[in-house]
Amino acid sequence: MTKARIVVTLKTGVLDPQGKAIEAALKSLGIQDVGSVRQGKVFDVEIKGDDPVQAENTLKTACEKLLANTVVENYSIEIA
Amino acid sequence: MTKARIVVTLKTGVLDPQGKAIEAALKSLGIQDVGSVRQGKVFDVEIKGDDPVQAENTLKTACEKLLANTVVENYSIEIA
Repeated sequence: MTKARIVVTLKTGVLDPQGKAIEAALKSLGIQDVGSVRQGKVFDVEIKGDDPVQAENTLKTACEKLLANTVVENYSIEIA
Repeated sequence: MTKARIVVTLKTGVLDPQGKAIEAALKSLGIQDVGSVRQGKVFDVEIKGDDPVQAENTLKTACEKLLANTVVENYSIEIA
């Protein structure tokens, strides 16, 4: 079993209204030091087998097919 | 300006129907090697000032007050 973490974030330049809302909410809670916030998604995945190269290939396919919208999102895969 | 990444994940034992749905979707797309999937959230935050200790304290407050539900979620803060 191989464990991996996939982080999906919006590409630079893509508007992030959710992040803007969080930024405003933090400020209204009195946390004034916050500059900008951008929200993304994280997936903790377990993959069968112990080959990290094969696991990374499987996860790349998963990202391209389902987990990330590569038009507006970047993804990174970390094998634990 | 200090950059930081906050990762919020569900605690062990907390059911994750969204993760289960992703797992099923990946299998139906032909990616059979996937064991389990758990989804979380990631926040990329910019904090004013260059003191990493102060930035971490500010972000801890932000997590406790808004970003994480500490009843069912864990959070981790990485200062870049």
